[in-house]
Amino acid sequence: MRPSGRDLSEMRAVSIETGVTKHAEGSCMIEIGDTHVLCTATIEPRVPPFIKGSGLGWVTAEYGMLPRSTTSRMRREAAMGKQGGRTVEIQRLIGRSLRAGVDRVALGERQITIDCDVIQADGGTRCASITGGWVALRLAVNKLMKTGDVVSDPLVDPVAAISCGIYAGQPILDLDYPEDSEAGVDGNFIMTGTKKLIEVQMSAEGSTYSRAQMNELLDLAEKGIDELVAIQKEATNA
Amino acid sequence: MRPSGRDLSEMRAVSIETGVTKHAEGSCMIEIGDTHVLCTATIEPRVPPFIKGSGLGWVTAEYGMLPRSTTSRMRREAAMGKQGGRTVEIQRLIGRSLRAGVDRVALGERQITIDCDVIQADGGTRCASITGGWVALRLAVNKLMKTGDVVSDPLVDPVAAISCGIYAGQPILDLDYPEDSEAGVDGNFIMTGTKKLIEVQMSAEGSTYSRAQMNELLDLAEKGIDELVAIQKEATNA
Amino acid sequence: MRPSGRDLSEMRAVSIETGVTKHAEGSCMIEIGDTHVLCTATIEPRVPPFIKGSGLGWVTAEYGMLPRSTTSRMRREAAMGKQGGRTVEIQRLIGRSLRAGVDRVALGERQITIDCDVIQADGGTRCASITGGWVALRLAVNKLMKTGDVVSDPLVDPVAAISCGIYAGQPILDLDYPEDSEAGVDGNFIMTGTKKLIEVQMSAEGSTYSRAQMNELLDLAEKGIDELVAIQKEATNA
Amino acid sequence: MRPSGRDLSEMRAVSIETGVTKHAEGSCMIEIGDTHVLCTATIEPRVPPFIKGSGLGWVTAEYGMLPRSTTSRMRREAAMGKQGGRTVEIQRLIGRSLRAGVDRVALGERQITIDCDVIQADGGTRCASITGGWVALRLAVNKLMKTGDVVSDPLVDPVAAISCGIYAGQPILDLDYPEDSEAGVDGNFIMTGTKKLIEVQMSAEGSTYSRAQMNELLDLAEKGIDELVAIQKEATNA
Amino acid sequence: MRPSGRDLSEMRAVSIETGVTKHAEGSCMIEIGDTHVLCTATIEPRVPPFIKGSGLGWVTAEYGMLPRSTTSRMRREAAMGKQGGRTVEIQRLIGRSLRAGVDRVALGERQITIDCDVIQADGGTRCASITGGWVALRLAVNKLMKTGDVVSDPLVDPVAAISCGIYAGQPILDLDYPEDSEAGVDGNFIMTGTKKLIEVQMSAEGSTYSRAQMNELLDLAEKGIDELVAIQKEATNA
Amino acid sequence: MRPSGRDLSEMRAVSIETGVTKHAEGSCMIEIGDTHVLCTATIEPRVPPFIKGSGLGWVTAEYGMLPRSTTSRMRREAAMGKQGGRTVEIQRLIGRSLRAGVDRVALGERQITIDCDVIQADGGTRCASITGGWVALRLAVNKLMKTGDVVSDPLVDPVAAISCGIYAGQPILDLDYPEDSEAGVDGNFIMTGTKKLIEVQMSAEGSTYSRAQMNELLDLAEKGIDELVAIQKEATNA
Repeated sequence: MRPSGRDLSEMRAVSIETGVTKHAEGSCMIEIGDTHVLCTATIEPRVPPFIKGSGLGWVTAEYGMLPRSTTSRMRREAAMGKQGGRTVEIQRLIGRSLRAGVDRVALGERQITIDCDVIQADGGTRCASITGGWVALRLAVNKLMKTGDVVSDPLVDPVAAISCGIYAGQPILDLDYPEDSEAGVDGNFIMTGTKKLIEVQMSAEGSTYSRAQMNELLDLAEKGIDELVAIQKEATNA
Repeated sequence: MRPSGRDLSEMRAVSIETGVTKHAEGSCMIEIGDTHVLCTATIEPRVPPFIKGSGLGWVTAEYGMLPRSTTSRMRREAAMGKQGGRTVEIQRLIGRSLRAGVDRVALGERQITIDCDVIQADGGTRCASITGGWVALRLAVNKLMKTGDVVSDPLVDPVAAISCGIYAGQPILDLDYPEDSEAGVDGNFIMTGTKKLIEVQMSAEGSTYSRAQMNELLDLAEKGIDELVAIQKEATNA
Repeated sequence: MRPSGRDLSEMRAVSIETGVTKHAEGSCMIEIGDTHVLCTATIEPRVPPFIKGSGLGWVTAEYGMLPRSTTSRMRREAAMGKQGGRTVEIQRLIGRSLRAGVDRVALGERQITIDCDVIQADGGTRCASITGGWVALRLAVNKLMKTGDVVSDPLVDPVAAISCGIYAGQPILDLDYPEDSEAGVDGNFIMTGTKKLIEVQMSAEGSTYSRAQMNELLDLAEKGIDELVAIQKEATNA
Repeated sequence: MRPSGRDLSEMRAVSIETGVTKHAEGSCMIEIGDTHVLCTATIEPRVPPFIKGSGLGWVTAEYGMLPRSTTSRMRREAAMGKQGGRTVEIQRLIGRSLRAGVDRVALGERQITIDCDVIQADGGTRCASITGGWVALRLAVNKLMKTGDVVSDPLVDPVAAISCGIYAGQPILDLDYPEDSEAGVDGNFIMTGTKKLIEVQMSAEGSTYSRAQMNELLDLAEKGIDELVAIQKEATNA
Repeated sequence: MRPSGRDLSEMRAVSIETGVTKHAEGSCMIEIGDTHVLCTATIEPRVPPFIKGSGLGWVTAEYGMLPRSTTSRMRREAAMGKQGGRTVEIQRLIGRSLRAGVDRVALGERQITIDCDVIQADGGTRCASITGGWVALRLAVNKLMKTGDVVSDPLVDPVAAISCGIYAGQPILDLDYPEDSEAGVDGNFIMTGTKKLIEVQMSAEGSTYSRAQMNELLDLAEKGIDELVAIQKEATNA
Repeated sequence: MRPSGRDLSEMRAVSIETGVTKHAEGSCMIEIGDTHVLCTATIEPRVPPFIKGSGLGWVTAEYGMLPRSTTSRMRREAAMGKQGGRTVEIQRLIGRSLRAGVDRVALGERQITIDCDVIQADGGTRCASITGGWVALRLAVNKLMKTGDVVSDPLVDPVAAISCGIYAGQPILDLDYPEDSEAGVDGNFIMTGTKKLIEVQMSAEGSTYSRAQMNELLDLAEKGIDELVAIQKEATNA
């Protein structure tokens, strides 16, 4: 029934390759089907003004799509002179989600910036960015712990994200672009490795949904998160 | 237990005054406690390029805060030269939520723009904007139906929004600013008058939540939506 | 002869309601006929760099129109990414006019920002902003004097503004929008309560005027200023 | 008494050299003392959208200062990414003033843009821009009349501008920079060759003025306009 | 003598992998040592306004660096709201260089946009962008020829680019970042496969150079171009 | 053969008038045929952050064209809200070229900004800016030496620039606009008075060139530089 031939609860093939760029303190290329996102983590000693001197750390994120990551070429945001609303919304979500999984006291007064750049897009780029972004963050924090800059691990539980939706009346897991553009309802579920919820965003476009349907999607999401966290752990040798 | 002394499931006083500005096709001032938002609806014959010629209508929204709607003065976005990320995120949510309650075929090829301007802020401005925005939309559509420009009612079911959160370990309804700034988890629930879900956004900041807690908040939200829809109906004589 | 049926020297009904927003140090809603402007005053301890350390205070103003304050919807300046030329010109005039009525030594090294936001427009918004802005300023200064932060009153004489013009060959007081868009000559007159001049701006559009006509308009303006100052005093209990 | 040693009613030396750039349809360098402004007129067949098809012409102006036209270097507006408030205010005044002296029916549906670029500044740049701008406009219109594109002269009466102010308690004509920065009251007076008024702008900074003083400055201004118009006529062989 | 241990005339290892993104009409990842650039070609039916209707084609380029492609993180240009001067200069060079190798009549009235995004930087990104950009262009043109949209090959001779410089007094080929930041003179040489010159840019920073030295660098460059063109041909099976 | 009737190796008439603006520390108007550029030098005690405390000086440049310096009016960059790519590219070249001729230790920790504003354009504005810019720089440095702020002359050898190109198959010196717009190859050559090379930029547009042609142009350029340096010396009484 799905354009891809996948089962309703079947994710696309996922791979995470770490250490893909030599400059970043942590990096990975996450591929979820044909969606490819490069995630890097940068550690800096300074924090934003509003927490200066608090002893707390900060994790933030930026998101971008290469102009030809999409079927037809998008205009380059740097050339347009501003980030679009969708970009801003996504990078705020990535930052918020990753921060929810960080013990900011343990991290200490430093900032880690996660850059998520979409090399190729086929649906689910924001979820891939969070899942891959956590891997880059994990690797950067590992470095800080190896050097002794951070003593107690600030990342107690992995963070991952997956989309679910209602497509042709059926709940499905991990929407690709053809599904995403047809689904009347779709949601992004961000959870920890122990399945605690961090963020749920479920939207209907030209449609509505019931609480029962919401619960079906949450069941699917928990299955997906389990699979993603296993791959994150493997990639980071945890 | 709540700073305001309200019960856990008690909303603030809500009032909606319609017809507050003479130029707009629909308008209201919605006051939810100390949060006051002016909502206006503008009907225009043109639609965005991507649906030109489709016969479908469009509903969009813009959001702003007056510089001194807040405790300390915010910089004016027009003077800064751009809308902040939070503004962009909120106005996209308002537009998406209202569109979910519109039969775009029945509306016909025209655009209605909902402007939500916060006169005074005390938490919950995005929910107030959606609830009040729907009233302005309803009044504008009434005009179109009176003149016969629209024949079949495109607004079959009201749309309203309410926030809930976990404050000091307790689920509470309709957070004001002091609660909002302390809550570890808070969510915005957008529903129709028949309690169908349009959008759920539940975020944890420095914390997580369980599915059981999520269900408690949904229960609270349904209660709040019932109350809001009753006030919307009264305000629009429906 | 006037579209509104008013006498040549008759102002529109004027009302000033104070204390309309709970956060600002001073606020009012001024209504001059169908022109409604919300004015707020914000006190901040810092001054602009060019007077830092001088001991002098500063008063500045910002101006904006809500998108649907006008007959047809204007684009939101925050969304356009800049303030238009008219906006910049008006807010500079408001700031300059109010400063002319302030003893900046008595005010002390602090800044008061007057925000004037047009809720509904029907001509004369800049004059209403100055007249209402002075009321907000007065209320804010009252607070500073009550706490003892300011000892000697820096506002010795009220500041108010009124428009006059030549419409269908006749000098008229207080132009509304239909008159304003037809008048060949119109001017804004800013004066103190003792009728000292602060700023005169008289422009002809596609026309010219004589010194005799200019004097007739000044006579009208003095009458209008008298009425406005009486209302300002009543509103501020002075 | 004046820093320059001039009499109270004495203007600086004025010269207008025409034809200073080979590309523009009209051009001049106007020097008023040490204030030097290059004015060019560009004729284009298109008019702004709001008068398209009306048969009416349009005159508009742009103003700029070279970065080192001033005592200390100003930041280049093109590099800052926007025109400052003062620039916008001045160029709107220039355009409005020149338009007041144009018969837009006679001009026909075309636009003339006057660019006023300050090469060296010593006070009074906006007045010099209007006076020199009119000369550039006159020369451009002469070309249109020579070719027969315009038949009836749209410039029936010259337009010129001069500043006056109150300096050390005395009314003075044509303020230079040292006077301008000290004067408590200063004004710009734009008139036609027959002394009809187009625009009066009189501002007090940290001070006020009386109607009697306003009349004294107008007397001075009329004297200055007479002198400027004579020089304009000589420069354009009229 | 070189930090990398390379001979004076020895290039870094070069690899070009084609077809790296599924959406673009042509794409490659070019790696020159640790400099990695993703190049994509997008074919669009429209051309810039200035050649509309001329029957001629257009090739243009855009360039960007991922924020953490460099040793320390650069600010994202989209977030800063504009492309920096260096970016603008480089993308103009890429476009100009590639256009010089295109028969624009043969290409026909269509535009090909080459996006060059630096994934990892270690010196020589603009040269890698041109060399890789030509490969992406070649692949896109191949598609147009296969479908018969283009009949006569518009790319008669490959275009490649290489840097040379004077480092520690010696002429060297293909500067990496440590060399580039120390070299007193460096140049970029863009040539065709038959060694015809397209663009030479040789700059001294805090130094000068002689014609003899310029000729030595040109000799080196010709050697480098030979090697690059061989790799381009292999990558495109030409 | 040349549109201007000049010999292949004949430059246009060159004049440099110094001291043309009273505020700048150094200034000149350089006229190369119909290309007129006003160059000013501004000395400031501060340097850019990246060399603060190093004891080294800095020379930088900004470039602009007046809107009607060209045949048809260009849009004003300040009004467009950004400097175009060509402007940015040119001002970076001017700064880099002048810096190459400066002993930054001898200059000491101060910045000199060269503003080059094109009053009238007829080809070769960037070369005129460099040649005239050096004169303004020389005059400003003379002032610093006269006051003893700089002791050892930081400008040991003049810097000048000239364009050459291949026009109708022939190498020509100093292209004017009609030649520039037709030439298949053109280059800018920046040298010192002793003919040491600072920067060479030779581009082909829709064409290529050989090393032999490049050498012919360099021969022409050396001739032109000799003539320009003689005029620079005369203008600065060196």
